[in-house]
Amino acid sequence: MPKIKEPVSIVANGDYPSHNIPLNILKTSKTIVCCDGAINSLEQNNISASFIVGDMDSIEKTLLKKYSSICIHKSNQNENDLRKALKWLNKHNIDSVSILAATGKREDHSIFNILSMLEIEWTKDLCFYTDHGVITLVKGKSILNSHFDQDVSIFFIDISIRFTTEGLKYEIDNQTLSKLYMGSLNKSIGSKITIKLSHGKALIFQSYKK
Amino acid sequence: MPKIKEPVSIVANGDYPSHNIPLNILKTSKTIVCCDGAINSLEQNNISASFIVGDMDSIEKTLLKKYSSICIHKSNQNENDLRKALKWLNKHNIDSVSILAATGKREDHSIFNILSMLEIEWTKDLCFYTDHGVITLVKGKSILNSHFDQDVSIFFIDISIRFTTEGLKYEIDNQTLSKLYMGSLNKSIGSKITIKLSHGKALIFQSYKK
Repeated sequence: MPKIKEPVSIVANGDYPSHNIPLNILKTSKTIVCCDGAINSLEQNNISASFIVGDMDSIEKTLLKKYSSICIHKSNQNENDLRKALKWLNKHNIDSVSILAATGKREDHSIFNILSMLEIEWTKDLCFYTDHGVITLVKGKSILNSHFDQDVSIFFIDISIRFTTEGLKYEIDNQTLSKLYMGSLNKSIGSKITIKLSHGKALIFQSYKK
Repeated sequence: MPKIKEPVSIVANGDYPSHNIPLNILKTSKTIVCCDGAINSLEQNNISASFIVGDMDSIEKTLLKKYSSICIHKSNQNENDLRKALKWLNKHNIDSVSILAATGKREDHSIFNILSMLEIEWTKDLCFYTDHGVITLVKGKSILNSHFDQDVSIFFIDISIRFTTEGLKYEIDNQTLSKLYMGSLNKSIGSKITIKLSHGKALIFQSYKK
């Protein structure tokens, strides 16, 4: 088995990236953890996986044989492949992980891949890179790089969280948001945005430069 | 202004449909309500809108002039264009609406377009048709057409809802689901599925036949 070296990325089984930012993250990753059948698209794009995690029910037979030495079988039916990969990585001594190809294809996969990050035990830094932007898991106080007029949305589930922001067009000042969509469709006004949560976790979507 | 005749569809500003099911719904709609800039893609596909709802900030100038007689200006910054269209339609005497092009493109738009259906006042039947499946808003008891091995996921926000299902591989028997992802990645075992909610609303994703 190969060692886990940083930077680490996970490739899920959604649409393979086409934007330069996720493609560059994939190319510069020293460890690529592949979710089950996502190996098919990695293979098509000549990218080598370091590990394949899942119940191996969606890998082509020839690839399953070829990569048997790096397969990590996890057959728990209550977890999807992305959460299995994260749980497995959580035990290792790494600081952060980038998640790629987690959206596109079936909407239930896309939505649950993202929102379930608010409900799993995860102790490291985590970002999703899609073809449209980056989604960052935040706790406590976070300062994120930004640019003027960047689209910014906040995803949360726990409506008791009090948010405080700096650097947004529609600032939030130690307030709860009673509806989930109240965190959406904001804009950055500068090169940094600061988000402070009273407790719990949220996800911040930031669009790429156009 | 044209009258509102059923069937009614709303075209949002996500990816224009490519699957036959949403395309046929669009072609057979007698009223098409277009969310703001979505008129650009309708125009490209030679589909006529009946109404355009929104703050008209993302319509090309020539189209804005061409369609000025069917534009319904709604400039509330706290609502997105899909919710504006639904609120406007809610006042009219129709039974149901199909929503198209609500996913794809920016993930925050896709996720909020879908999940905010659980948080708006809406008294009629509602389905999203994407390129992957149909998402139906359900309350009380619902019987939905299905097929063997269909992918089924339940979206909800209120974790106090007790669900009862019939016709799923992993049945739920008057139980709450403590994590949002616990409603995901189920399968149908036959031609019908029944979903009963103790209270509140949920969304049921069902994949199309492959």
